[in-house]
Parts: sequence; structure tokens; C-alpha cells
Amino acid sequence: MGGDIGPGAVVPAAVQALSSSPALELILVGDQTVLETHLQAHRQLLESGRLRLHHASEVVGMDELPSRALRFKKDSSMRVAINLVKDGTAQAAVSAGNTGALMATARYLLKTLPGIDRPAILTAIPSIQGRTLMLDLGANVDCTAEHLFQFAVMGSVLAHAVEGIEAPRVGLLNIGEEEIKGNDQVKEAARLLHDSSLNYIGFVEGDAVYTGDVDVVVCDGFIGNVALKTSEGVAKMIAQFMREEFKRNPLTRLAGLVALPVLRAFRRRVDPRNYNGASLLGLRGIVIKSHGSADAQAFAHAIEVAVKEVDKAVPDRIDHQLEAQLTERQAV
Amino acid sequence: MGGDIGPGAVVPAAVQALSSSPALELILVGDQTVLETHLQAHRQLLESGRLRLHHASEVVGMDELPSRALRFKKDSSMRVAINLVKDGTAQAAVSAGNTGALMATARYLLKTLPGIDRPAILTAIPSIQGRTLMLDLGANVDCTAEHLFQFAVMGSVLAHAVEGIEAPRVGLLNIGEEEIKGNDQVKEAARLLHDSSLNYIGFVEGDAVYTGDVDVVVCDGFIGNVALKTSEGVAKMIAQFMREEFKRNPLTRLAGLVALPVLRAFRRRVDPRNYNGASLLGLRGIVIKSHGSADAQAFAHAIEVAVKEVDKAVPDRIDHQLEAQLTERQAV
Repeated sequence: MGGDIGPGAVVPAAVQALSSSPALELILVGDQTVLETHLQAHRQLLESGRLRLHHASEVVGMDELPSRALRFKKDSSMRVAINLVKDGTAQAAVSAGNTGALMATARYLLKTLPGIDRPAILTAIPSIQGRTLMLDLGANVDCTAEHLFQFAVMGSVLAHAVEGIEAPRVGLLNIGEEEIKGNDQVKEAARLLHDSSLNYIGFVEGDAVYTGDVDVVVCDGFIGNVALKTSEGVAKMIAQFMREEFKRNPLTRLAGLVALPVLRAFRRRVDPRNYNGASLLGLRGIVIKSHGSADAQAFAHAIEVAVKEVDKAVPDRIDHQLEAQLTERQAV
Repeated sequence: MGGDIGPGAVVPAAVQALSSSPALELILVGDQTVLETHLQAHRQLLESGRLRLHHASEVVGMDELPSRALRFKKDSSMRVAINLVKDGTAQAAVSAGNTGALMATARYLLKTLPGIDRPAILTAIPSIQGRTLMLDLGANVDCTAEHLFQFAVMGSVLAHAVEGIEAPRVGLLNIGEEEIKGNDQVKEAARLLHDSSLNYIGFVEGDAVYTGDVDVVVCDGFIGNVALKTSEGVAKMIAQFMREEFKRNPLTRLAGLVALPVLRAFRRRVDPRNYNGASLLGLRGIVIKSHGSADAQAFAHAIEVAVKEVDKAVPDRIDHQLEAQLTERQAV
């Protein structure tokens, strides 16, 4: 069981998820002895059968090369968990482990859906008006127009099925809203999307992710990853500056005390734990990537994301929607 | 005189800059009659000779195609101003106009420095530890490794000359710090930088821009633009959420009043006006791009940026540094 914290976060998250979702059953994959130690206070869950353990003797390191993990770690917790999805024992896998290895292993074992060239990573991001879905976040550093189109279909399906948005507004991330802006890939992707029956609203700029004027933001994985990490950087800097200003002198400390309930309410609203759980989309199965440093609450949220995607049969819907879009394109 | 506000921002900014820099002389380029109207309260500046007017009959629209502006707007304020730099009348041009047209016009009139394939746009960004310089921010959507190398040289020169950093730490923006991450361009650029005498510290991720662990962040213009716009979006969302939380009820409003001086101190620290003024680097002359919506204070800051680059003879330094780097590379 990987991630920066391992069973220390995953086990309490599992307990929490089981108590909030009565129909949920979980299989913890990892070192059986270690897991049993962590579960000493929760024997009744094991006895109820809703929580099972599945031994895996290896763990993929957070910095391990995906190709190495794939070749040499045949009994890693990550691989065993994905195999449980493959053989139908589990309906989804959730991992806080090495993203590259998770994607490579999931792709190798589960395979992509027909018509999907490359899986993509999607996450929900807080916006002024609610939530924005964004993909790809780092699985693909070079994308063709066709890849971006497939991402748009997948993001749109998720926004509809999981977020409940009737006709999700899909935007292509670009460096300007005018048609002449951008590289060849986004221009061609724009043409494909314009001709599709998706609710394509055109190019959007980086700030649109947070204004909420778009439901699904599509970009290649290099750009999506940089945008997400940059956002984290800005948020951390702002938090740091706020702390420093409130700690400047006794008077500002007092003001901080008075403002504390408001600052806490604000923090809850942008708490990244409530957005934890990125979807590996385009696979013949559901795989959710939790942030490596996720604590129990955050990991529990990633489990919730998996539950929702299982409920809505996301891979089937992507399969149908993509087929519909491609059929429609040929008919034009 | 372009930009979203035009002379209403630029004229008071000029007055402010002249009063804070006693050695400065400014030429305002635009519609003479309009400028004179705005300057009615400042006749003594015109009489002193430190402020001159230069008529230009046209303005490039903020959404006008750069190619059209270049071909048909021969007497635009932007073009006339850059021509003043070209003929030596002015030492730098500052514009709040259409970025694409400004870049195209500057490149056409001033030409690039020897060894520079493409000019780039650089700006300073606040970080937890001070300021980070970042380029390119949108001039070049597709960059080769050699372009990225040239950007690194230019950014390093600016960090040294203007920011006063002895050996500026240069990082390449990537989706991970490991050598295997990224696309072919960044991998090859990493090799070029590693072999150079620049203080290259390796790949950095998006959050490094704001942690201050790097002085110069190098990336292609698509990524730089998205990162910057995304950052603006996050900052706006956070500001909006803070406002909403403090306005929730009479009690939170009271807390807001108590915290107001602290919040104001915080806001001053990240005030984008104090970072206004992006440098068009790699040209045989100094051109500074102000944000289109810059007010007088922000535009005055862009003028300050121009003054600093003139003082430090930035184009000459870039020319020398690039020549030194290329000579060194051939010698290896």
C-alpha cells in the first residue's frame, strides 16, 4: 500500500467510508500483517465481511520508474488491486501511489476503451460558481487534436453522469479566446468539437477554470499539470502571506482571533481534501488516484469518487458516448 | 494610445513617474489633442521639456489581428513609439496595447538580437521569498529546446542585471522533477542548460514559481500564459470567497472590520499593480508591455521597469551573454 502515508491514512479512510456508505464493501490490498495491526480496533468490520484484506507483498516506490514497476513488481499492492478490478472481484481501485506507475499498470491490465487512444487524468477543481472538471492533468505530455477530442467526450460524460449537469459546457484551454490563437493541435481540436454534438463553448483561458464559466476544461497533460501545480503554489503563497500578516504584532494577532471563524469557514470551502480523487478515464474499469499525501479524510473522499463512478457506470457511458460521437462524425 | 483605459491611465502615470524619477524624460505618443486635454493641469511639465507629445493618428484595437495592425496601421501610437526607440529618440517604449500587435511590430521594426530566434515575454511574479521571473508568457506557442535555452539566457541576464541576483537559479518548468519527465523539447533544453555555465537547477514544477526556490522559470509561451492566467483565476476566486465569508452575517462583517488593516496589508503584498510591466526580451531595444487594464499606478510601475532596463542596458547584456554561452558551447 503506497502513498506518502500508506495504511495510516488508508485504513481510517476505509473505516470512515464504510460507516458513511452502508452499501459499500472494501478490500484493502497490502501487507496483511501491517493491515491487521492497523485494524485491531475494527475487528467487527472484518467479521461483518464488508471489509476484507488481500495480501500483496510489494509496494511501488513513489519515485520508481513506471516501466520498472510494471516489469518487476508483479505483486505490488497497486497491481493486485487493479487485477481485482480486472477479474471482477472489485468494481473500482483507489490508490495514493505513484501516478505514472498506476496509469501504466491500469492501462496494461485493464486496456483502454474502444476508440480511446490514451487514458487521461481528470479532477474536480473548486470554482467561484461550484466545480470545474479538468483533464488531462499529466498522463499525456503531447496530445493530438483527436486525443483532446476524446478527453472532451470523457470529461463531458463525467460532468453529466457524476456532476448531474444536463449539457456540460466544454472549453478548450488556450492562450486567448480568439480563433487564431494557439497551436495547431488546439485549433484542429476546436474544429472537431465544433462539429460534434457536445456543448462546446470554444477556447477558454486559464482563469476560466476558477470563474466557473465552463464545466469541463480540456488540455494536454503538460499544461493541465502545470496549471494545477501553479494553482497549488498560488494558494500556498496566499495562505502563507495571510498567516504572516495576522502574526505581525499583538494587534494583528487579536484581529486574527476575531476573524478565525470566518477564516476557518473560508478554508473549508477550498479544502483540497474535498476535491481529492482524480479519475483515470478511458480505461475498461474504474481507477481513482488519491493525492500521495492524502490524509484519512482526503482518502475517504477519493473512495466516494470511486463509489459515484461505479454507481453511474462511467466506463460504459464513455464507451457509448464516444461511439455515438464517432458515428455522428462519419455521418456528416 | 491603446489599452483598455488609454490616456486616462497613461497620462497620470507619466506625471507620477516624472515626479518620482527626476532624471526621467517621457514622450507621450497618441492623439495630440486628446493628450493635451488630459495634460491641462500639468502645463509646467510640458514647458520643462521633460514631457513631450508626439502625435499618432491611429490606435491598434485590442482585438485587432497583429498582421493587420502591422500592415495597415502605419501611424498607430504603438508603432510610432517603437519607431522612436528604433531611431534613438527614445530608449524604451511602454505600451498597454494589444500584446500580439506590440510583439509583431517591435520584432518587425527593431529586429531580434543576433542568436535570438524569437523574442519572449517575461514578467516578475510574487513569491513567498520575493520575486520570480518567468518567461515566455505567450509570445511563442511552440518552442524548440534552443528557444527555451535562449529564454533561459535572457531571463538569467534580467535576474542578474535588474534584480541584482549574483548567480540566478534557472529552472525549466516541467510536470515532474525527475529527468525522465516531460516532452522532448524540455528534455533537450535541460541537456543544453546543464552543459552551459548558467546556474541551471533542473526541472521545476508549477508551484516552484511561488515558493521562491528558483529565480527564473523557463517555459514555452502556451504553458507560461496558461500558468499566469490560472494563477490570476485562483487569486480572484480566493478573494471572492474571502469577501463572501466576511459578508455572511453581522458578526462576520464585524470580524471583517477588525481584520481590515491586516487584509489591506496582505492585499498590498500581492497587488498586481506592483508587478505590472512585462519585458519583450530578445529585441534590439527595450519594449515593455503593461497590462491592458492597468490603472495609473500600475502603468507607472511599467514605466519604472523600462527605466531599470535602460539603466542596466539589458539588450546589450543579453547580446553579450548569449554570445558567451554559444562560444562556450562550441568550445566544449
